[in-house]
Formats: sequence, structure tokens, C-alpha cells
Amino acid sequence: MVPAPPDPPADWPLIAATPGPDLRLFRVVHERRCNPRNGIALDALRLESPDWVNVVPITQDGDLLLVRQFRFGVRAMTLEIPGGMVHRGEDPALAAARELREETGHVARRLIALPPVEPNPAFLDNLCHQYLAEDVEPAGALEQDPGEDLVVERHSPEAVRRMVADGVIRHSLVLTALCRVFDLRR
Amino acid sequence: MVPAPPDPPADWPLIAATPGPDLRLFRVVHERRCNPRNGIALDALRLESPDWVNVVPITQDGDLLLVRQFRFGVRAMTLEIPGGMVHRGEDPALAAARELREETGHVARRLIALPPVEPNPAFLDNLCHQYLAEDVEPAGALEQDPGEDLVVERHSPEAVRRMVADGVIRHSLVLTALCRVFDLRR
Repeated sequence: MVPAPPDPPADWPLIAATPGPDLRLFRVVHERRCNPRNGIALDALRLESPDWVNVVPITQDGDLLLVRQFRFGVRAMTLEIPGGMVHRGEDPALAAARELREETGHVARRLIALPPVEPNPAFLDNLCHQYLAEDVEPAGALEQDPGEDLVVERHSPEAVRRMVADGVIRHSLVLTALCRVFDLRR
Repeated sequence: MVPAPPDPPADWPLIAATPGPDLRLFRVVHERRCNPRNGIALDALRLESPDWVNVVPITQDGDLLLVRQFRFGVRAMTLEIPGGMVHRGEDPALAAARELREETGHVARRLIALPPVEPNPAFLDNLCHQYLAEDVEPAGALEQDPGEDLVVERHSPEAVRRMVADGVIRHSLVLTALCRVFDLRR
């Protein structure tokens, strides 16, 4: 028996919103809010971003396509599923198909929506839409933009699960998509 | 048979690093890097942050403790596992025990490390350390800081899985911890 939850906390009234510096990737907003618990005012950082999208591409043989690239945050190579930004007004499913084509050179027979996630609701306002792409097939060369340098790799589900267990694959948004398709328990 | 992966991509040589505005939560750095594929220089945004920690608290009855709070990024209530920042020099396991105590008023008999994740290697430099806290027991009142307004809820694993499936729980870093403990496939 689960006891009834206590009264929920209250929303924090907005006192002021001030635009911050331009970070290109994000629009920065400093919001002054009032803590309803104690009346204390607090400055909250908000990074406004377009939604993101990523996609778990599975071939007819059941292998996964992964992308290896240098990532500027961790200053190291990562192994990830393909993904990117949803353009303004673009359907997230079309963005997923586009990123799959651009970053892996493959197209999918079937694209299945997985539940979207909040990348970080504490300071980001956006969603990451996630898809499973089944029966992906080669459709031509990669279409990398000038700021990308990607290499595509093909791995079995067993190899992917091992790399997740070993921490080789550890981008949070890659794991939130993979865990909808594979059992990632230890 | 998985074919041998192609040659990996090369690291991007650093041309210049320029400090950006102070965002408190993050130290902003603009790094100019050279794309080894085409020689084109690119400005990369890097947000430097302390590591984070979160913890999956399970009671002796097998229920989970979750925290409901207003989140400034999405301007809405979220339901999450407890977590926070690792203090400078603090052991991540102690940070997990501290956040568990402060945000839920509980202590754990056993704290088991789950593999850490990269919150977002594209622009963040940090890790989120993750733990499973078993046999958590009440140890007193919450210890909220002036900038928090938390309510603790207790839910069965079945209820948690349902809320994950329904998108009620959708913070990416909550899912990356939960998927190590529960099968979150659709």
C-alpha cells in the first residue's frame, strides 16, 4: 500500500526576467523568483534552446549504427546514437530522419516515437525527442556540416550493452533512448 | 559478424580559449577549434560545472522515494530522484548520502555505485555520479537550503515504471539512474 502523497509544493512566482549574454547555442535568461516556502527571492538561470532529437538506428540484421565524434564539452571522443537540433517549425520525426540520413547515410523503413525526455529541467527549457529507426538501409554518403567530423560504426546489441556497462557509452541522452529499446540493468 | 570499425576521427586542435560571462551555475568558455576534416575553425561553447550526483532511494518495503519540486528551466513541477552538486573535494558517494539525507530525510543502509554518465558531452564538461540506496530509513526532517522547496513522495516500483512510461518522470538524469535498476523498455 502506497500512502497518499503529501500536498504538492507551490509554483514560484516570477519577479523579473532579464536577458543574459548571447551563447548562440542558448538564449540566456536570468529569472528572479520568489520561494513560496520562505518568501526569499532567488536568481534562477534559464537556458532557452530549440528541442533536440536523437534516434536508435537498427539494421535489418539487428545491429546498431553509432557515431563517433570529438565532443567539445568533455574534450574527448564519444560514441553516441545520431541526433541533433530540431529546426524551427520542423516535425521532430522529420528531424530524426534528417539527422539519421546526414550523420549515418542511412534511411529507415520505420520510425517509432519513444517518449521524449527533458535534458535538464533545472536550467534547460527544451525536450529531446527520441525515436527508434527500424530496418535502416544505406542511402548514400554522409552529409556533414562544416562543423562536424563524424565516423559511423556498426555494433551488435550485445556489444552496445557491454559498452554501456563499461561506461564507453555514457551520454545521458543516448542512454535514455537506448533504455527504451534494451534492458540496461546491471 | 560485426565488421571492423573504420578509422576513428581525429581530435580537434585548440586554437584559443576565451572566458565567457559568469553564469554562477557554470563557468563559460569559448574555445576556438580547428576541424581536422576540413581545416575550418569553429567557436565551441563549453560550460564548466562541478560534478553532479543523484541517488535511487529504495525502502525496505521496496518503494522508491521521489522528490517533487518547481524547476526553473521548464517552469513546471517535476518528479525526480534526489540529487545535487558534488562539493569541491567531496567524495561522490558522500555527496549522494548527503543529498539523500537533505532532500528526503532518509539515510541508507547500503549505497551501491551505478556507472556515472555524462549529462551532455557536447557542451558540459562534468559527470553525474549515480547511486542505488538500499534499505533507506527515516532519520529526521528535510534539510532544505533557502533556495529549495521540496516535497517527498513514496511510490511503488510499478507506479514509477508507469510514470516513466507516461512521461510524468522524464528528467534524463533520473532515467539514466532508474534504467540501471529497472527495465524501462516499452
